[in-house]
Amino acid sequence: MTQPYDVIGLGNAMVDVLAQCGDDMLHDQGIQKGVMQLIDMDRAVDLYAAIGPAREISGGSAANTLAVLTSLGGTGAYIGKVRDDQLGQIFAHDLRAQGCDYLGPWAAADSAAETGRCIVLVTPDGERSMNTYLGASEHLAAQDLTDVDFAAAKWLYLEGYRFDGPDSFAAFDQAIAATRAGGGRIALTLSDPFCVGRHHAAFLALAQDHVDLLFCNRAELCALYVSDDLPHALMRAGADVDMVVCTDAENGVHIAHNGAVQHIPTHSVDIIDATGAGDAFAGAFLWGLCAGHTLDLCARMGNLAAGHIITQIGARAMVDLRQLFRDHGLI
Amino acid sequence: MTQPYDVIGLGNAMVDVLAQCGDDMLHDQGIQKGVMQLIDMDRAVDLYAAIGPAREISGGSAANTLAVLTSLGGTGAYIGKVRDDQLGQIFAHDLRAQGCDYLGPWAAADSAAETGRCIVLVTPDGERSMNTYLGASEHLAAQDLTDVDFAAAKWLYLEGYRFDGPDSFAAFDQAIAATRAGGGRIALTLSDPFCVGRHHAAFLALAQDHVDLLFCNRAELCALYVSDDLPHALMRAGADVDMVVCTDAENGVHIAHNGAVQHIPTHSVDIIDATGAGDAFAGAFLWGLCAGHTLDLCARMGNLAAGHIITQIGARAMVDLRQLFRDHGLI
Repeated sequence: MTQPYDVIGLGNAMVDVLAQCGDDMLHDQGIQKGVMQLIDMDRAVDLYAAIGPAREISGGSAANTLAVLTSLGGTGAYIGKVRDDQLGQIFAHDLRAQGCDYLGPWAAADSAAETGRCIVLVTPDGERSMNTYLGASEHLAAQDLTDVDFAAAKWLYLEGYRFDGPDSFAAFDQAIAATRAGGGRIALTLSDPFCVGRHHAAFLALAQDHVDLLFCNRAELCALYVSDDLPHALMRAGADVDMVVCTDAENGVHIAHNGAVQHIPTHSVDIIDATGAGDAFAGAFLWGLCAGHTLDLCARMGNLAAGHIITQIGARAMVDLRQLFRDHGLI
Repeated sequence: MTQPYDVIGLGNAMVDVLAQCGDDMLHDQGIQKGVMQLIDMDRAVDLYAAIGPAREISGGSAANTLAVLTSLGGTGAYIGKVRDDQLGQIFAHDLRAQGCDYLGPWAAADSAAETGRCIVLVTPDGERSMNTYLGASEHLAAQDLTDVDFAAAKWLYLEGYRFDGPDSFAAFDQAIAATRAGGGRIALTLSDPFCVGRHHAAFLALAQDHVDLLFCNRAELCALYVSDDLPHALMRAGADVDMVVCTDAENGVHIAHNGAVQHIPTHSVDIIDATGAGDAFAGAFLWGLCAGHTLDLCARMGNLAAGHIITQIGARAMVDLRQLFRDHGLI
């Protein structure tokens, strides 16, 4: 691999299984609303049997981010483990079809764990509650990364959800060292407040020791700094990380950088399905950053992409985001 | 099986792979717009590699029809062959989740032909062009039907696309005889004008000898009676079949019955994706018929369901159709 990628992403490869449901089903199934919960294969089978008709749309947080970045014209590659099964083929196709190189790794078709999937239940308020069977994605290991030319990337984008995998630290360390060796920088998304809680020390050490750009939302940042006080958390994060980009739903975005915090407002939209909002934000922001735009403009790009994603079903854009950006005068 | 089904459907079981594209891609790929073309596995692989990001939504013409019927509260079962693979599981789940019994048959996981899929390319005008890899569905055989209690059904609904399978005649004959033995009636959808052309004599013989209710659109009916004159084709069909229900896009529906033709207008809507319009029409019409409504009201129910389906992506409704019918004062 010699292509100088804007971004190489590393995450849990997932196909989303999206279904609509009422709040009563979340209650009956004991599902916590608005967050990601891990489930095993048995639970995935039981839950799938209980939900309504679904549609399968490629997902995976970092993969969604890379798909946005490359569909905007950035260069990107993605690493996340799937099995060589129908869902794995779907996952790989949908990334490549949006211009993102998919670097695998592939687990053999006869390996025990199927391609990961996320049963996303969308309630009438547009909120999504995610039930993730990690499957093959959990088994990504440091040795899977040996052939990846991280030194060719401007940015390495790490998905916080990967901390839920058994070998995440070693894989992250290897990818970070290789990226640094080529002069690249490190971005991390905190992914989910409960994921931050599960791996708090590891997240904090990673942020403090290695991360140049931290993506998060209000709940995730507050979880990382164990505080309900967002300005306080932003200040502390700004001391640990060069750029902190914290989305705050309809309140817009806060960016901590160079000792100051700036706020970029957003427009509220009617939410159909919140799946992938943060992923799309990060993809558009990173694309803007790689294209040399100001942080303010990057944030407005992120807002526009995220605001579009939540007006449709699924985390992958069904419109030409470049055209959307042109229509809004951002490029 | 002892449940007195309103309808048992027999068709090609498919998962739709829906992607948007421009007319230039249809041209470059040699795809005829607005119709169904059969492709083999190699072509399916090549075409899939060429298209943009897709979403997988259960389809299959008769299965879509049954899903509408059962989601409205009718009782139904569906027969169509899938393989025991991930797409086959998705297909079965999505039918059951809409209240339709899925009777299989299942091909073993290690059999050569995968679950069938239809690569549906949706152009900006909302028209869909279908590229069908029949896969396992092609191999449905008469002996697969031995355990099905067709005599328990008020209606047998036959999908014209099944004529493309090698053993369709025998399977149809067996299902028809068993349904008749229980006093049930026979409905047929002509499916596609080119499919009618490929199997013209068989379609005509089936209509004349066995069919009580014929669903079709203008192009299909004209293909069956080898005429460009719709009134003439309706008259001839009305002589062959008890009820002929011919959709005519934004012109509404023509029903030939008891020697007369009535016309039921419809409202035009902005088309997003035409996939499944005819299927939804038939499902709602059949449900109305089984509920004892007049043909005129059945047609208006069909129009409303079809008009809704084409305002969304995919052939399976994402809203509560019963509520939609209530909102429009149809029930």
